[in-house]
Amino acid sequence: MERHFDEQLQGLKNHLMKMSALAEVMIADAVKTVVERDAAAVSPVYEREEIVNQMEIEIDEICLTLIALHQPTAGDLRFIMGAVKTNAELERLADEAVNIVQKAEHLLNVPQLKPFSLIPEMATIARGMVRDSLRAFVNRNVDLAREVLLRDDRLDDLKAKMSVKLTAYMSEDPGSVPRALDLLLISRYLERIGDHATNISEIAIFVVEGLDVRHHADQKRFVNRTNGHADNLA
Amino acid sequence: MERHFDEQLQGLKNHLMKMSALAEVMIADAVKTVVERDAAAVSPVYEREEIVNQMEIEIDEICLTLIALHQPTAGDLRFIMGAVKTNAELERLADEAVNIVQKAEHLLNVPQLKPFSLIPEMATIARGMVRDSLRAFVNRNVDLAREVLLRDDRLDDLKAKMSVKLTAYMSEDPGSVPRALDLLLISRYLERIGDHATNISEIAIFVVEGLDVRHHADQKRFVNRTNGHADNLA
Repeated sequence: MERHFDEQLQGLKNHLMKMSALAEVMIADAVKTVVERDAAAVSPVYEREEIVNQMEIEIDEICLTLIALHQPTAGDLRFIMGAVKTNAELERLADEAVNIVQKAEHLLNVPQLKPFSLIPEMATIARGMVRDSLRAFVNRNVDLAREVLLRDDRLDDLKAKMSVKLTAYMSEDPGSVPRALDLLLISRYLERIGDHATNISEIAIFVVEGLDVRHHADQKRFVNRTNGHADNLA
Repeated sequence: MERHFDEQLQGLKNHLMKMSALAEVMIADAVKTVVERDAAAVSPVYEREEIVNQMEIEIDEICLTLIALHQPTAGDLRFIMGAVKTNAELERLADEAVNIVQKAEHLLNVPQLKPFSLIPEMATIARGMVRDSLRAFVNRNVDLAREVLLRDDRLDDLKAKMSVKLTAYMSEDPGSVPRALDLLLISRYLERIGDHATNISEIAIFVVEGLDVRHHADQKRFVNRTNGHADNLA
């Protein structure tokens, strides 16, 4: 029974890593469409989205099964709850890749405004954040999780830079407005991907650090306290 | 023990409803800042965000405690997993209210571009979607959940209308670009709130309809099948 649980837990981790790898490829393809104006990179993004959506359902079911069939320890239970949350974040960040490719499809039909080197730079950071936040979660590596959180500042800076540049373009050349808007939204989608990776890193920290401070007796006390807190909000 | 579980489950539902009510007030205040140019509505949004963030942590702990101390049936377990996911959606949609108020603060310092009646309309729809998706989840009301999903189309239409109007403004009057951009992003944040409410409605459906089709034996089979599926992706 114990061995079966460990195998299923490993299966859960493998699923999450595969979903993360799919999302990473989706981001790369979506940005390739923007930067290299490569129409062939469009449809694989939509195809992978379908797989990611299916995997989200499957991962939730694996989590439910793990809890229902085994009675995981507090630490494993916390990890499985973290997996449910991470799963949702992965699906959402894959959706951002779809948002990017939709804007990229508009841009394929019009002359290029300008090659923006900041977009590939943002994509590289975002992809790295996705990969490493997942590694941090699966390996319960709090140091890596915290390091990912720091990278989000750089992504925010690049988004702000893009915003300044593109606002200037729109003010100077009214003809550039639709294209500049698409690029502005693309930079925001990339920043959102970083936000989802940040959320995953925070989940990783919650899973590990919760372990050290909480135990059975504390849990009861905690529920009483939180009930009291919520009443204050009524 | 059974009664204790039911009480805690009711406490969980109450927490989620309170968090949803807080988020609704945040959306109303954020949009009041935009539409009525009411600076007094700004700081309550930030104050409530802190409470919502705290509640997110507490609700996760309640869910963990419910599973760890009791061994919920498959149906209750599925509901608690849904609560973990709904909890995250509520926190994220409250963040969108913060995004709105941040843009509204810019707009308070510049002359009004134009009163946009579509923004209050979008806000009304979005708030109703939040309230009803939560009611659908807590009461396991699939019909209401499906009805909420339909309302999202109207929100998408209004966002598209805002986008057309604001793009035209920017093209015609370069001086309007920064203000029009803020309004465009505000309309997108409202649409995102609708997306989160859509996600909550889908969770409500997943919780109820999963109950009818899944049971112990099926779960084992399902895990085997999904492992096979994931291997195909490798």
